[in-house]
Amino acid sequence: MADTRPIGVFDSGLGGLTAVRVLRRILPEENLVYFGDTARVPYGGRSRETLLKYARQDLRFLRSRDLKAVLVACGTVSTTSLDTLQAENDLPIVGVVEPTCRRALAVTRRRRVGMIATLASVRSGAYEAALRRLDPQVDVLCRPCPLFVPLVENGRFERGDVVIETVAREYLSPLLEWGADTLILGCTHYPLLEDVLADICGPGVTLVSAGEESAFELKRLLTARGLRAPDGRRGEAEYYVSDQPEDFERIASVFLQEPVHHAARRIDIDKY
Amino acid sequence: MADTRPIGVFDSGLGGLTAVRVLRRILPEENLVYFGDTARVPYGGRSRETLLKYARQDLRFLRSRDLKAVLVACGTVSTTSLDTLQAENDLPIVGVVEPTCRRALAVTRRRRVGMIATLASVRSGAYEAALRRLDPQVDVLCRPCPLFVPLVENGRFERGDVVIETVAREYLSPLLEWGADTLILGCTHYPLLEDVLADICGPGVTLVSAGEESAFELKRLLTARGLRAPDGRRGEAEYYVSDQPEDFERIASVFLQEPVHHAARRIDIDKY
Repeated sequence: MADTRPIGVFDSGLGGLTAVRVLRRILPEENLVYFGDTARVPYGGRSRETLLKYARQDLRFLRSRDLKAVLVACGTVSTTSLDTLQAENDLPIVGVVEPTCRRALAVTRRRRVGMIATLASVRSGAYEAALRRLDPQVDVLCRPCPLFVPLVENGRFERGDVVIETVAREYLSPLLEWGADTLILGCTHYPLLEDVLADICGPGVTLVSAGEESAFELKRLLTARGLRAPDGRRGEAEYYVSDQPEDFERIASVFLQEPVHHAARRIDIDKY
Repeated sequence: MADTRPIGVFDSGLGGLTAVRVLRRILPEENLVYFGDTARVPYGGRSRETLLKYARQDLRFLRSRDLKAVLVACGTVSTTSLDTLQAENDLPIVGVVEPTCRRALAVTRRRRVGMIATLASVRSGAYEAALRRLDPQVDVLCRPCPLFVPLVENGRFERGDVVIETVAREYLSPLLEWGADTLILGCTHYPLLEDVLADICGPGVTLVSAGEESAFELKRLLTARGLRAPDGRRGEAEYYVSDQPEDFERIASVFLQEPVHHAARRIDIDKY
């Protein structure tokens, strides 16, 4: 039953590489194909209609390869377009919302779950709806953090940086005053902010990272369906972007938190 | 000779409205058509090839109207694609680089001109090349300020905000240590930062704003060619965007620095 066909992963940019990092750790034997839509990043502020169009193109490109499953690492696409993508495609597609919400509900003590993400993810109401569907008694408060993605991409995610700490404190204070005991990081860029966010939240708040939970969900799904690659081998990872592959290694190193020596290949996403 | 055909203005997003603000002030009788490519903003980090493709589409959309002239309010397009656009089109097209460089050379006392802009504008070397062509003796230092656009769009441009002041001080300090006596603001978002930047630079540095200078250049050009609309009338302004017209009034009010009651119409830029 061993299946070495690759897993496809896509995101609006390179933030989804934080999910690739987790996949490489928990599924080292799997082949991965990553697409980052760097020509059209960020997806965060776009309309539902535009997002669905982009998501369809991203998936059509990945499916030009023979994939066994797809991880939608983009929070914005997961919260606006996942149902449509699943209905239109005949392979397993894992988003970031459901697995993350289940995890948040497993760890919350007072059923007060906060969520931070891009403006489009918050507006979609998808995290709120999924949490309430899984537990009608849960209290949820969602806040957009529109500056986190540009700050992370410009390297401003370290402890002690007054810029990220000021912005993060402003974004988190309504959630902390409200009494969140669990905080969903609903964007793949946010795992890099974990130290800064944990300092501000203190030990009373458990952080749940969307990219991480969806990687675990994908592992469970592949195992249940007998789609895992054989143990002991070392899977390959291929990277594609829609713009500027020359910056890829530097930025990818930030997100994968290890040196990157693979070049990314550029494709014209408008053709898909 | 009075000509009431509209002037076209485009930018990657809504920042170009700072140029519209100046045009409304110095050419109140002219009709304007503005296009902001809000579905594909920001242009700043994109490749030359992608930028030229986008710029051609933006101009094709504007030219679906009968225009008498075009102002390219996008610094990134002006520095990467202006020559090609001028060669391909039979109407006057004013960018932001030449007029701004002439102004900077007119005001510099020690011929030490600093320039700040998006990464793509700095990489293009266009400001540097234009300054040296106009004055081979000038010293130029250009620095990218990739966080200014997202910070301005999120309202962080006021005096006293530790976030914008910290980032601005870091971006400007190499220019000040180097001894710039003139600073070109090479991006249409930056006029909103004038107070913050002027405080950091002090009275020894003259700020030259790209959007403003290109509006004056356009006025000179229309006058010289007898293309001005009749005095005394009040011109109309129409606004088009490629995504999310619902946010338009709020953001446009920031850039125009007056209340905006015109709705923007949305167009599908991929069709052009």
